[in-house]
Amino acid sequence: MKKIYVIKIGGNIIDDEQKLSVFLSAFATQSIANEGGLVLVHGGGKLATRMAEKMGIEQQMVDGRRITDAETLKIVTMVYAGYINKNIVAQLQANGCNAIGLTGADGNAIEAHKRIAKSGVNYGFAGDIDDVNTRLLRVLLDQQMTVVLAPVTHDKKGQLLNTNADTIAQETAKALSAEYDVSLIYTFEKSGVLLNADDDTTVINSINPSSYLELKTQQKIFAGMIPKLDNAFAALHSGVKKVIIGKAEQLEQLISGVSGTTIIDE
Amino acid sequence: MKKIYVIKIGGNIIDDEQKLSVFLSAFATQSIANEGGLVLVHGGGKLATRMAEKMGIEQQMVDGRRITDAETLKIVTMVYAGYINKNIVAQLQANGCNAIGLTGADGNAIEAHKRIAKSGVNYGFAGDIDDVNTRLLRVLLDQQMTVVLAPVTHDKKGQLLNTNADTIAQETAKALSAEYDVSLIYTFEKSGVLLNADDDTTVINSINPSSYLELKTQQKIFAGMIPKLDNAFAALHSGVKKVIIGKAEQLEQLISGVSGTTIIDE
Repeated sequence: MKKIYVIKIGGNIIDDEQKLSVFLSAFATQSIANEGGLVLVHGGGKLATRMAEKMGIEQQMVDGRRITDAETLKIVTMVYAGYINKNIVAQLQANGCNAIGLTGADGNAIEAHKRIAKSGVNYGFAGDIDDVNTRLLRVLLDQQMTVVLAPVTHDKKGQLLNTNADTIAQETAKALSAEYDVSLIYTFEKSGVLLNADDDTTVINSINPSSYLELKTQQKIFAGMIPKLDNAFAALHSGVKKVIIGKAEQLEQLISGVSGTTIIDE
Repeated sequence: MKKIYVIKIGGNIIDDEQKLSVFLSAFATQSIANEGGLVLVHGGGKLATRMAEKMGIEQQMVDGRRITDAETLKIVTMVYAGYINKNIVAQLQANGCNAIGLTGADGNAIEAHKRIAKSGVNYGFAGDIDDVNTRLLRVLLDQQMTVVLAPVTHDKKGQLLNTNADTIAQETAKALSAEYDVSLIYTFEKSGVLLNADDDTTVINSINPSSYLELKTQQKIFAGMIPKLDNAFAALHSGVKKVIIGKAEQLEQLISGVSGTTIIDE
C-alpha cells in the first residue's frame, strides 16, 4: 500500500510569512522524497478577521465560535480559497513540488451540508462533511501531485461552506485509508502532547489506548488535548494507521517519528 | 480528435448574479452534452475594484490599464481565484457539471513571467504567458472534468501574476490544439462582429482572411474589433479550428454555429 501523509497546518504558521516559507520548503522536500504522497490542509489564520475589520463587517461570536454569515463566507472564500491557498501553491511550485489547490467544490472533492441549528444557535454557512471524493484525490496523487485543501466545502447545491480544517484533515485521512497507508499529522504550537503543558520538553512520544486511559485517570493530560486525542483515536478506528501531533517546524522529524507524539491503536 | 471548447466570459456576465446563474446553467448543459470537453475562462469584473475602494487602496492607472501593485494583486487573488472562481465552480457542480477551478499556479497549469517594463511603464505584477500545461489539462479532461481558469498565473518562482483572461483563453486554446479539435469562443456584450456597431441585428456570420481584408479596406469594421480579430486569426494560425465571437446568453447557438460570428482560416 502506498504511503500518504495528510498534514494539517494552522494559523500560527499561516500568519507568519517567514515561518510559512520555511515550512513550505521543508514540505516540498518531503513531498518530493515521498513521490507526492502528501496532502496539505490549511486553516485560515487571522487575515480573514483583519479583512472583515477593514471592511467594517462585524463578527458574530457564539461560545467563542465565529458565526459564518453571508458576508463572512464571502471573506472566508476570498482569503482561504484565494489568497492563502494560491500563495501556498505558488510557493510549493517554486520549491519543485507540483501542488494543486482545491476547495471541496473543486471536482466535488468534499461534499458537506450546512450545519443544522442546535439549541437555537444558527451557525450560518458552516459545513459538516458528508463525503470525500477519493477518486479525484487518487487521480491527482497518481500524477504525483500534492493536493492543498482550503477549509471551504460545498453542498453540491451551489452553496460554499466554511469548514473546520482539522475536520477536513481527519475526514480526508479516513477516506483515503481504504486505499492507502495513511498517517495524519496535526501541527500546532507545541512539540507534541505534553505531560507538563508549560514545559515543551515533556513530550509523550507515544500514546496507545491503554496508556491514554492511564494518562486520563491520573489527570496528566491537559483538558484541551482530550478532544484532539479522542478524534485521533476515532481516526485510527476508521482505518488511519497513525496520528502524529507536533510542531510544524519539525515536519521531517514528525514524518520519521523522532519528534512529536505518535498515537497508535495497539 | 476530441472536440474541446474554450469559452471566455467577461465582466458583463460576472457582475450580474442573475445573468451568471443563467449562463452557468446553459454552460453545464453544454458541458454534459460534450462529455466535459469544455474549458471556461473568466475575467474579473468590477468586484475587485469595489473591494479595493472599500479597503482604501488607490488604483493606479496608466493608459486606461490598471497597474497591479502588491496590494492590488492581493485583492485580485482573493476575488478572482477565490470568490469568483469558487462560486462559479460551486454553481456548475450544482448543475451536474464536474467543474474544477484552477489558477495558473495549480498543477503549474499556466507559467508566465512578470511583464517587462516598457517606455518607463512598470506594469507591476502582470503576467505574460510562457507555457500552458496541456498534460494536466488532458488528465482532467480525460476524467470528464470541466476546467474553470481564473485570470491569475505564476512565474514558478513563487510569484502570482494578474493575467488577462482573453490571453489565457487564447493561449490555452492554442496549446490544446496539438491534441484536440479546438474551438475558441469569446463572449461579450454584442451578438457578434457587427456591420453597424449600433445595430445588434447586423451580425457578420462568418469571416475568413479574404472577407476580413475586404471589410477592413471598406472600413466596415469598428476599430475596437480589429485587435480581437487579429488575435483570432493568430489563434487559427496556431492550430485552433474556429474562433467564435458572440453573446454569452446564446452559448448553445454559438457552439452550434447558428449565432455569433465564426472566424475561420479558409
